[in-house]
Amino acid sequence: MKTRAVILLSGGLDSSTVCACAAAEEREIHALTFDYNQRNRVELNSARAVARRWNVQEHLIFPVDLSLFGGSSLVDPNMEVRKDVPLEKIGEKIPTSYVPARNTVFLSLALAFAETRKASEIWIGVNHVDYSGYPDCRPEFIQAFENLAALATRMGTEEGSPLKIRTPLLNLKKGEIILLGLRMGVDYSQTCTCYSPFDNGQPCGHCESCLLRQAGFEEAGISDPLLERFIQQ
Amino acid sequence: MKTRAVILLSGGLDSSTVCACAAAEEREIHALTFDYNQRNRVELNSARAVARRWNVQEHLIFPVDLSLFGGSSLVDPNMEVRKDVPLEKIGEKIPTSYVPARNTVFLSLALAFAETRKASEIWIGVNHVDYSGYPDCRPEFIQAFENLAALATRMGTEEGSPLKIRTPLLNLKKGEIILLGLRMGVDYSQTCTCYSPFDNGQPCGHCESCLLRQAGFEEAGISDPLLERFIQQ
Repeated sequence: MKTRAVILLSGGLDSSTVCACAAAEEREIHALTFDYNQRNRVELNSARAVARRWNVQEHLIFPVDLSLFGGSSLVDPNMEVRKDVPLEKIGEKIPTSYVPARNTVFLSLALAFAETRKASEIWIGVNHVDYSGYPDCRPEFIQAFENLAALATRMGTEEGSPLKIRTPLLNLKKGEIILLGLRMGVDYSQTCTCYSPFDNGQPCGHCESCLLRQAGFEEAGISDPLLERFIQQ
Repeated sequence: MKTRAVILLSGGLDSSTVCACAAAEEREIHALTFDYNQRNRVELNSARAVARRWNVQEHLIFPVDLSLFGGSSLVDPNMEVRKDVPLEKIGEKIPTSYVPARNTVFLSLALAFAETRKASEIWIGVNHVDYSGYPDCRPEFIQAFENLAALATRMGTEEGSPLKIRTPLLNLKKGEIILLGLRMGVDYSQTCTCYSPFDNGQPCGHCESCLLRQAGFEEAGISDPLLERFIQQ
């Protein structure tokens, strides 16, 4: 029997690559996407496309409206998403796009999902190299969550097999992530990275997430198939 | 300025007592109740009544539909809630009423709420003595969450003041919790403990939660004002 794994799939470049990694290790994939009332509604469709591409066992889009708390430019239309920040400044300070405790919330819900599906792994596309400086993307955070998971659930106690958090991208540069994904057959034209894309899915090209993606494709020495899609149109 | 605190308020006996404890310590209370599609819909009204009683600064009822995952008799109408279990057997094994990773999910959302409100504490009514054997009520779980919170957020990093998890009931017996609450002015007729009460709010009297409550009032040597309400009717 295949090992069951919950994959946190936003539909972005990183989580789509993670999905391919899990497929390459022959996991039975239970993909979990959050509709947290994010500005970027396009990424939900990207997540659906990626889930289909990898033939997942199940894809759950779970509503959890983090805009009820506010406090982040990704969910609060009155807060501005930073634009055109110089690359070397990204990650220096926690930006307004940081959603309070988002990865803690997402991993907790993934833990609940994993426990009901008897999955023994959660895969998440956190990255500590080319990232925006979010505290909940750091290796020590992931380790602390794994420690928590071992104490939090039936799995970790009665059944004695604590859950593993798999982070295949943790120490890769953006360019390396892209090259890894391409080797495994990721179609990056399906993925959506931008914090506030146009309605047709075209990325803004100016937010931190777009800038990190652009730099990643440059580093990998190839052009971004998502942008090509819009140039052709 | 008062210390700001997020209180996890289900409307049950324990969390209502916790709310009183926080009021006694003069916290500015931001109460957080979850509508997780639980069978017990009465407790949401209890939570509202208790929040009013303690004059909270803010009371947010946050929807997070844990029935989408299933796996617990508290959210899945096809699973049975255990009835009339002998008291000494309660807590021996994790029962069907255990909601997978519920406290992890609730604390994570409380962490997000706390961060947006700049609250420095989360209060939760977990209890390790007279309880149903849920893994996520144990002191080691709470400690692990506190460790996680210190790494998860802006507070714990840039602002250098990690959040505290307050658990005033952790080591109290049920009877002691009730006596403590009564001293502080808790009106237990407002609280709802039952896993599946009648529509008028009357407790079933047979689920584990009812049995633990009954034993608690016996231990405290007083009668339960909630039951008196229904006898009088």
